[in-house]
Amino acid sequence: MGKGRVEAFTDGVVAIIITIMVLDLKVPEGEDFSALLPQWPIFLCYVLSFVNVGIYWNNLHNMFHTVQRVDGGVLWANLHLLFWLSLMPVTTAFMGENHFATVPVAVYGFDLAMCATAYSILVIALHRLHGPDTAFAKAIGRDRKGRISLAVYVAAVGLTFLDRWIGVALYVAVALVWLVPDTRFARVIEK
Amino acid sequence: MGKGRVEAFTDGVVAIIITIMVLDLKVPEGEDFSALLPQWPIFLCYVLSFVNVGIYWNNLHNMFHTVQRVDGGVLWANLHLLFWLSLMPVTTAFMGENHFATVPVAVYGFDLAMCATAYSILVIALHRLHGPDTAFAKAIGRDRKGRISLAVYVAAVGLTFLDRWIGVALYVAVALVWLVPDTRFARVIEK
Amino acid sequence: MGKGRVEAFTDGVVAIIITIMVLDLKVPEGEDFSALLPQWPIFLCYVLSFVNVGIYWNNLHNMFHTVQRVDGGVLWANLHLLFWLSLMPVTTAFMGENHFATVPVAVYGFDLAMCATAYSILVIALHRLHGPDTAFAKAIGRDRKGRISLAVYVAAVGLTFLDRWIGVALYVAVALVWLVPDTRFARVIEK
Amino acid sequence: MGKGRVEAFTDGVVAIIITIMVLDLKVPEGEDFSALLPQWPIFLCYVLSFVNVGIYWNNLHNMFHTVQRVDGGVLWANLHLLFWLSLMPVTTAFMGENHFATVPVAVYGFDLAMCATAYSILVIALHRLHGPDTAFAKAIGRDRKGRISLAVYVAAVGLTFLDRWIGVALYVAVALVWLVPDTRFARVIEK
Repeated sequence: MGKGRVEAFTDGVVAIIITIMVLDLKVPEGEDFSALLPQWPIFLCYVLSFVNVGIYWNNLHNMFHTVQRVDGGVLWANLHLLFWLSLMPVTTAFMGENHFATVPVAVYGFDLAMCATAYSILVIALHRLHGPDTAFAKAIGRDRKGRISLAVYVAAVGLTFLDRWIGVALYVAVALVWLVPDTRFARVIEK
Repeated sequence: MGKGRVEAFTDGVVAIIITIMVLDLKVPEGEDFSALLPQWPIFLCYVLSFVNVGIYWNNLHNMFHTVQRVDGGVLWANLHLLFWLSLMPVTTAFMGENHFATVPVAVYGFDLAMCATAYSILVIALHRLHGPDTAFAKAIGRDRKGRISLAVYVAAVGLTFLDRWIGVALYVAVALVWLVPDTRFARVIEK
Repeated sequence: MGKGRVEAFTDGVVAIIITIMVLDLKVPEGEDFSALLPQWPIFLCYVLSFVNVGIYWNNLHNMFHTVQRVDGGVLWANLHLLFWLSLMPVTTAFMGENHFATVPVAVYGFDLAMCATAYSILVIALHRLHGPDTAFAKAIGRDRKGRISLAVYVAAVGLTFLDRWIGVALYVAVALVWLVPDTRFARVIEK
Repeated sequence: MGKGRVEAFTDGVVAIIITIMVLDLKVPEGEDFSALLPQWPIFLCYVLSFVNVGIYWNNLHNMFHTVQRVDGGVLWANLHLLFWLSLMPVTTAFMGENHFATVPVAVYGFDLAMCATAYSILVIALHRLHGPDTAFAKAIGRDRKGRISLAVYVAAVGLTFLDRWIGVALYVAVALVWLVPDTRFARVIEK
């Protein structure tokens, strides 16, 4: 089964998710700078989620580049990832509108952890389909970066109940680590 | 007439439908766990509809794989299916916000039944165009699974007025049956 | 300049327009059949606009099939058509929520007339680029159907102020005429 | 790394941005012409933003045509541009709903200036990747038009606090200059 349409569908859903998040950036009421002030936490959450969804698109883009074929299991593992990504606009708005309150920060982290889990499942499904000696297997390696991110997200959700800013700081930290381009795939492709 | 753009357009519409459903997941008011509680029926409906739309995408993906060409009739049969799928976000929110009340559950089932009907019409339109000895005809066979689903949906709408949970249980049951990968097309493609 | 990305972009915008119209189908308040009753005019407008946007997609699909290349003028003529199509969700909701009141019916018809005008301009831009002896020119002919539709829309807007149901009837009539597949392109392609 | 999926993703996001702006065109309350009157500033802002996003799509379309490959830096430079473009629906509605008040007009111009900055960064990232003797480098030249636009936007934001209509006039002027087709790429492609 060809990978083309799965890539196209995934790109489509991710493009829509990254764009409809802006619908939760409510138009400020009032016409001077003071109207913009209460929007800052919502805006910061939007930036964080835009970067996070951008990272997933980037990773999916690189990963599917080395993928040769897909099967039903991969299709559903991919849809499972898109499901948790599709919740990002709601969890983002929940965290932003409550100005980084404890429970919303934990819920946002839970969504990030589920996305990371779903990404790991997708990697496993693709690994099983391709076997250990393929370009895909070599590129993804043991997916250490993905596993560590998942662990940090889980820890962040717990630590949020100690101090919510620890949670937020860890989400930002993981995003920054991923912004450094994922050279694993690039290296294999260049060979 | 090539099938490429019909596939692309269909994927686009389905990607948008599956994603804008999240816009009906309102941001919880309040910042503690009790704010999340009244959201559970809405969230469960979202999961069910996400899976249902995912199943349609999966089936359309597999079906168009064996299709060789399309005509005006197929285009409109496809748009007819997209019409009933496009109502999914509204019927989902109607069922969720009313906490699985009888009429909304029946309306949701009616939409599912119309999707299944439209899918059957699309199968017939493609069958007529391709003839009985093509890869498409062999793959789809008599579309028993599609016909049984339609019958179950119609029964479920009726039984909802007896007990609404029968309706919900039947919708979930059909979704689970389809989640088992549709091996009909896979078998033909592998040959 | 290749036509591929213009087709893809056009398909994307049309797919989004046809799908976000559903966001104006508000979730009925209440949980019995009486809650659905006031939604009927909105639902009928949705069906009419879904068919109209579907017709435009169908026509653009067929037309771009015979097109060989595009230039800057075609790109903007196409964006101009997408502009008036993008207003369809608003004009549809305006007509539906006001239960086919005179001014909203006229505004809806004005949008349809502008879409038809923009379609004619696009045809002219493509005609100029391809010359009179190309597959495109032969397929589109004198675009009689497009010109008559435009004339009927203009007449319908005027007649709406006499009786709004004349306007609605004419919009439905034009849609039905277009639902009959446009064989002009099909004939040329088959040759 | 191939450019195909970056083009497709970019087209997808731009298609969604240009279309969801219409969601901020609220359905007029009331059913006569007087209900449409207060919508005029919002409608004019919608037209201006539709043209602006259309210009960016057009420029990206032409630019990627001469691009041969992309890397991680280009992907993020592109996402950065999409970020500021994605804010266009909010800043448009902010300016329209406040009937071109000073601060909203300045905020809109700030977004336009950030889009132009992001576009320049994308050009630089692509320039670095392709080298000075490629079709891309020859086509884009010194990107004078892009740099002048950026300078005008920055000036317009400042001058808005003198008289907001100067800002609006400059935004319209830049859009009109870009509507004149960008012949730089066309010339290179034709050779």
